[in-house]
Amino acid sequence: MTDMTVDDSAADRLESALTGRIDRSAMDTIADLVQQVPLPELTRLVHTSTPLQSAVLFRILDKDDALAVFENLPPGYQAELIQSLREPEIAHIVEGLDPDDRAELFGELPANVVRRLMSGLDAEEREMTTAVLGYPKSAIGRYMSPEVLSLHEDWTAAEAMEVVRARIDGPETVYLLPVVGSGRVLLGVVSLRNLIAVEDSALVGDMVRESISTQALTDREVASREFLSHRLIAMPVVDKEDRLVGILTMDDVLDIVDEEDAEDIARSSGSEPLDRSYLSSTILRLVKSRIVWLLVLAVSAILTVQVLEVYEDRLDQVVILALFIPLLTGTGGNTGNQAATTVTRALAVGEVRIRDLGKVIWRELRVGALLGAVLGSLGFLVAGLVYGWAIGLVIGLTLLSVCIMAATVGGLMPIIAKRVGADPAVFSNPFISTFCDATGLILYFSIATAVLGLS
Amino acid sequence: MTDMTVDDSAADRLESALTGRIDRSAMDTIADLVQQVPLPELTRLVHTSTPLQSAVLFRILDKDDALAVFENLPPGYQAELIQSLREPEIAHIVEGLDPDDRAELFGELPANVVRRLMSGLDAEEREMTTAVLGYPKSAIGRYMSPEVLSLHEDWTAAEAMEVVRARIDGPETVYLLPVVGSGRVLLGVVSLRNLIAVEDSALVGDMVRESISTQALTDREVASREFLSHRLIAMPVVDKEDRLVGILTMDDVLDIVDEEDAEDIARSSGSEPLDRSYLSSTILRLVKSRIVWLLVLAVSAILTVQVLEVYEDRLDQVVILALFIPLLTGTGGNTGNQAATTVTRALAVGEVRIRDLGKVIWRELRVGALLGAVLGSLGFLVAGLVYGWAIGLVIGLTLLSVCIMAATVGGLMPIIAKRVGADPAVFSNPFISTFCDATGLILYFSIATAVLGLS
Repeated sequence: MTDMTVDDSAADRLESALTGRIDRSAMDTIADLVQQVPLPELTRLVHTSTPLQSAVLFRILDKDDALAVFENLPPGYQAELIQSLREPEIAHIVEGLDPDDRAELFGELPANVVRRLMSGLDAEEREMTTAVLGYPKSAIGRYMSPEVLSLHEDWTAAEAMEVVRARIDGPETVYLLPVVGSGRVLLGVVSLRNLIAVEDSALVGDMVRESISTQALTDREVASREFLSHRLIAMPVVDKEDRLVGILTMDDVLDIVDEEDAEDIARSSGSEPLDRSYLSSTILRLVKSRIVWLLVLAVSAILTVQVLEVYEDRLDQVVILALFIPLLTGTGGNTGNQAATTVTRALAVGEVRIRDLGKVIWRELRVGALLGAVLGSLGFLVAGLVYGWAIGLVIGLTLLSVCIMAATVGGLMPIIAKRVGADPAVFSNPFISTFCDATGLILYFSIATAVLGLS
Repeated sequence: MTDMTVDDSAADRLESALTGRIDRSAMDTIADLVQQVPLPELTRLVHTSTPLQSAVLFRILDKDDALAVFENLPPGYQAELIQSLREPEIAHIVEGLDPDDRAELFGELPANVVRRLMSGLDAEEREMTTAVLGYPKSAIGRYMSPEVLSLHEDWTAAEAMEVVRARIDGPETVYLLPVVGSGRVLLGVVSLRNLIAVEDSALVGDMVRESISTQALTDREVASREFLSHRLIAMPVVDKEDRLVGILTMDDVLDIVDEEDAEDIARSSGSEPLDRSYLSSTILRLVKSRIVWLLVLAVSAILTVQVLEVYEDRLDQVVILALFIPLLTGTGGNTGNQAATTVTRALAVGEVRIRDLGKVIWRELRVGALLGAVLGSLGFLVAGLVYGWAIGLVIGLTLLSVCIMAATVGGLMPIIAKRVGADPAVFSNPFISTFCDATGLILYFSIATAVLGLS
């Protein structure tokens, strides 16, 4: 009876936690207490609390418990619970949490609850409701259509066509039809074309073919690239147990890719993406999208001032050295950008992976050496003819070493960025230029000091 | 009878031109003579020449004449002519011409000839055969599927479904069905979904909706962007008389966009696109894709050496001025790149047009002034505190003017590039950087001369 008493008191405490203001710490308390209360008691609580309270409680249950509770509710109250999960208050509570906290507090919802939660919503309601599902903004679950026309493996083609015809107006696509087995587990897909081509008596289970699917929590960019690279027309979305929860269509994917591309392009030039069109943005908004990066880059360019300060006395001895500074830093920046852009692209399309780091370094080292040999020879000749062979030698050797350094660093940076989990576009071209500027100047004055015998 | 004699002799000369080697000048002669020979005579010539000769002759006819000739041939020979148009020799003759010559020499083929020419070809044969149609490599006609399942406006939904079922395996898509009237003129489209939803007795002509279509000669990138921005699943392709000649599907579009994106990205960093993957390219090929741009950029950077040479005596007087060169040129380059990237993107997605040139200049002038005011004030303070207020003033004023100049030039360049018909990515970031470097140095030393009273 002692256990029973503990449970009783946990249930009481849970009930009182639910009646207070539901904030971050209340959520933590509720999540703790839920562990200690037996299922029948939880079911009773969900049934008897106010709609908001019961929705919060239900949402905080993990998937198995949620399913058990849901199935034990009277059918009428099941609908009421689904309705209360759609309340804006619930969406706001869930949305207000950190993504990490959200993942920790909320499990996935059972697939059949999701399906009923989502049916018949318009785009705006759906966007609000996907928050309740706990998918973070970057997850593909936020962008899928939860209303999906699925077939059962036991149906005949004629029965399947009957269902398609009956529900033709609802779902976003009817051209790719996911096939599910018991418990809505995804078995594969059948195309509408295939369904039309076969005999009426053919079994759906016999014509199903393996499908490329994605999990609802997958990053939206990863799922979209997968979708596009396989030239799909639609892609089923499943939960962790492979149960069908939605379908991703081409227009969702194109929206995501457009947004990501605009971000990448802006970042690669060192500005923040604009959230509206260029001509309709205010001047202040344009300035805001650019100023932070410019400041950061200008502050890091102070490094080049400090490097030059170190060599100020050498510059004073041979002022001609100053003439080549923009040429040398410019060449370093260009070489670095070429390598960085090539490798970033290769990473994006999956030609290069993080484990290819060594290969990329070795390639860029050789490419840089060849580029440097060509530019260095030319620099040696031209500068030598005009300013004397000693200066020519300094310029030639500097171009050679700057090209090797810049190509290697430029090839390295995007892979390192990806390795530490950052967007390769963050180590964008301007940063690589600035880094190559400072390093190039050190190489330049070291070589000049040695060749010209300065001190 | 004089006329008749002239025609006769033109027909004779045409016949002898056809029997010789068929090269560029022979083609010109044939094209001239074809104008003077009456249609019945041309039909006879097409009928009696060798397959290669008759194919060349037929191909050089303009569309109306080709249709008349084709319809007057015996049915058995019609098939033979179609067959000979598929011969590799014909493809090579057509392909060997300049795009301009080709457009001048060859008209379009009649839509029903195209359809029969194209039916049942695999991808490789089709690629060869589209050359015969005279579409240049950049035209969307090269990428469409000529095998398209079209409906007639007079059919009922049941009849249409019958046709779809019968031809389900052939065409690339059955989900969007172009509807044609008499003479294969495109009337619009019906989706398969729509066809399934309606009553069997519904008329195709009643459910047809307007479609976004494209002409076969449209630039492939323009057509693809249109396809994507309207979130289509397929797009009918028509000839100049609006007759259906093919259909463009999503996978064709994605191939084109992938290729164009790779080109744009490579060019924006100053390298040539690779025609194979990064890791499988040889070192020499990587060097080749980068070296030309690096050389051009290095040669244009000699401009900065010459600018500095002009100011060498000022540098000799105040060597401290050299310390800020990379900081100032770097900031100019970054500001210019931000503006260029934003405007290039806005041009690509159609937010900005060439006629907005004035608006863009005025916007960037103000954005540059604000950015310059912020960076300039900071530069004035920091440089002033460390190196004295006179130097601070020089740095502050230079940053202000460099930002104004760079933002304006950066915003201007992509529009000018588009105006002169070049790819905006050609005036790429490295070029803008180099230009801003040289101009920025002139501003710097002019301001320094004035403020510090140098001579």
